[in-house]
Order: sequence, then structure tokens, then C-alpha cells
Amino acid sequence: MQPKKLPRLKSTFSVDCVIFGVDDGVLKILLIERNEPPFKAWKAIPGNLVRDQEDIDDAAKRILYELTGLKDIYLEQSYTFGRTNRHPQGRVITVSYYSLIQKTDDIRPVTGFAKTAFWCPVHELPKLAFDHREIVEKALAQLKHKINYQPIGFELLPKRFTLTQLQHVYEAILEVDLDKRNFRKKMLSFGLLESCQEKQTGGSHRAASLYRFNKKRYHQLATKGFIFGL
Amino acid sequence: MQPKKLPRLKSTFSVDCVIFGVDDGVLKILLIERNEPPFKAWKAIPGNLVRDQEDIDDAAKRILYELTGLKDIYLEQSYTFGRTNRHPQGRVITVSYYSLIQKTDDIRPVTGFAKTAFWCPVHELPKLAFDHREIVEKALAQLKHKINYQPIGFELLPKRFTLTQLQHVYEAILEVDLDKRNFRKKMLSFGLLESCQEKQTGGSHRAASLYRFNKKRYHQLATKGFIFGL
Repeated sequence: MQPKKLPRLKSTFSVDCVIFGVDDGVLKILLIERNEPPFKAWKAIPGNLVRDQEDIDDAAKRILYELTGLKDIYLEQSYTFGRTNRHPQGRVITVSYYSLIQKTDDIRPVTGFAKTAFWCPVHELPKLAFDHREIVEKALAQLKHKINYQPIGFELLPKRFTLTQLQHVYEAILEVDLDKRNFRKKMLSFGLLESCQEKQTGGSHRAASLYRFNKKRYHQLATKGFIFGL
Repeated sequence: MQPKKLPRLKSTFSVDCVIFGVDDGVLKILLIERNEPPFKAWKAIPGNLVRDQEDIDDAAKRILYELTGLKDIYLEQSYTFGRTNRHPQGRVITVSYYSLIQKTDDIRPVTGFAKTAFWCPVHELPKLAFDHREIVEKALAQLKHKINYQPIGFELLPKRFTLTQLQHVYEAILEVDLDKRNFRKKMLSFGLLESCQEKQTGGSHRAASLYRFNKKRYHQLATKGFIFGL
């Protein structure tokens, strides 16, 4: 998979984006398939070179948009990968970013070298370009760390949701099955959830209570940190 | 403080190191004073350009050694700073690293542009080169986050220490006064400390009990995380 005799790259910084989404209880990431030789048909996370006069944070936003059409995504810096041999065209140090978003199917490349953009379960990843698997693994570890210390879910769930829906988000990210009673008890103890005083309608199961996030408490916990404490 | 007409740099990656040490209850960081024009007399954290064929982690170790004489320091990647105007000689993206070490006075520049290396309290920092203050602040925030979620102190304290000594480390890093009784109760509840069944000798105060870390539990908590929960 290592192409030969490649032109040396002019720029030597790149950014790469690891975009997580939860789909029906499964954690997925956004991949692209490249359309140009010598990397034709390679699967990769969205990433490209930073322009000379471009801040790296701006580059990450621009490149994510170009390759996937995603806009206004809050990207957090993940890690910088600087091994000398990580790219076949020369020395490229890449700064990776990550984000957990509400999964949308409205993704398509706008410009650049992506033929398609698509969601892939993190545990069914194809062979990825360069050191992209390592980049994904680092971001995944950070996401798992974060969910243990900060409330997560606000951006992923509908405004009103059941405790089961919230539990599925945690289970998808942590890749474990959680005990229903413990999860509920713990989650309710944080003062993070408010009852909507309403039951879910429709569905064949026993109607479940609907909750919403207490935004103030959510932001308080996001700043101060908490421990979910698995 | 912005020199004019500087030669453009050849390399465009650098690394910078934020080295924390605790000295008599005060959190300090290691600074250098540069000795060459146009940056003569500038104060900075130890940092320099990455070589063409050098991994960034290796570069951080090399540069820290060259500028301060420190060796075998475990450096953790902190953050990457990539604003276009952060360096007067052109586009330089810097990857910062940080470490918390037992403060040593055995520091002196080995080679390179440092005239001296010295410890400075984090709250008495002089004007620093480039965006080094921002780099220090980011690392400091990360250190404070870390002490809330992982045991810290192993590397900073003598083998046998008093609870007061441990409390001073926490107070120095968190920059708060902690309640003695609560601190003791909490610390002892983690199963992290073992009594040496011995009292501190010497000193004019009432002899305090000596403790040591339970290494197994320490590493367990370091991996699994805990919450100090201020």
C-alpha cells in the first residue's frame, strides 16, 4: 500500500479529523475514500495540508468541510503525530482533531480528493491510510476518558429522551454493557437530568419517562468535571 | 519585543517544554534566558526547532537536555500551537510537552542558545518569548486537571513522607488551601497510602506519621483514574 516515487510535498503540516457519531447504539467514525492516484481508493479520515497563511484550527474546519460537507462542528485538538516516516511523500507532521456529533447522513465531499464520505463502525474499520488507525485510536481513548469525567450526550440526543437512550450512548462509547439500575441511579444523582413529567408515546414497550438535560448543571459539570466512575 | 528583519527559518516545527517542579510549597517552572541576538536576554521555556529526520518526541528530549541538562524526563504531549503569526521569523508550529518532576538545582545549559536555566514561580513569570505564556497556561490547566483525576506525588516526594508534605504538593499545584482533615480523610480512603508505622524524627513540631505509596494501588489508580474531587 506504499506508493513509490512520489513528489515531495511542499507543505509539511496537515490536520486530520476524527468525527464520532452514535448510530443505533454503535459508535461510528466518518471516513473518506480518496479518488486520485497514487492514493486512489484509499480509505482515510478526513485530512489535508494546512495552507501557508492559515491557522491550524481554521485549517481543520476548512478541510472537514471540503471533504465531507460538515460545517460548524466544534473540533477539539486531539494529538500531534510527528514520526519521520509517517507519510510516503516526506516529512508531514499532522495535528489531529476530534468531535462527537449527532450522526447525520447529509455528508458529501464538496471539493478536494474525496470521492465519497461515509460512516463506519469503529470496530469494522478497513485498512486506513498512513497512520490513521493510530490517530483514530488516540482520539477514541480520549473520548472514553472524557465521558468518564464530563457529561456527554447533549449534542447527541433529542431534546427529550429516555434514560435508555442515554444509556445506549454511554454503552456505545465505552463499548460495555451497563447495568440499567446502576446507570439510572448514578445518572439521576448528578442533578443533570430533569423529568419532563411525560411518558414516551408509541412503541410496543412499556412507556418510558422522558427527561431533558438541565443546561445550567450540564455546563457546570462540563467545566468542573465529574466522575461517571465505571 | 518584536525584532525586525529576521532571516526566515528553514525548519518550521519546534517543540517547547513546560517543566513543573514544586519547591517549598510553590509551583515553579523551568525557564531559560537566551544569549544570542536578536533574542538576547529573552526569557523562554526551553524549546527549539525539530531536525529534518527527528521524531518530535525525540526532539523534545534532545532540546530539553541541550538547554537545561535534564535527562530521562518523562514528557507528555501538551498541545500544538499553530497560529500563523506566533513567531517573528515565519511560520513555526510548535508542539508543547510538559512534565512534573522533583525540582533539582542541577540544571545548566549544555549547548545551544541558552545562557542560563532557572526555576521561576508560575505566578512570578517574567515576560516570555513568543506565545510561551499561553503555552505555560495550557500545560498548567492540564496539570490541574490531571491531579484531580490521577494520583500525583510519587515522583515529587521522598520515599517516606508525611500527609502534610503530600498536602503541600496538592496545594501548590491547585493553588488553593485545603482543609487538613478533609484532605487526610480523602487521601486515606483511596487505599493509596501505607503507614510506615513510624513517626518523623527531628523538627520542633509534634512528630507526624510517615507514609509511603502503595505502588500497586498507585499504578492502578493512575490507569483507572480517580477523582480527588475538590
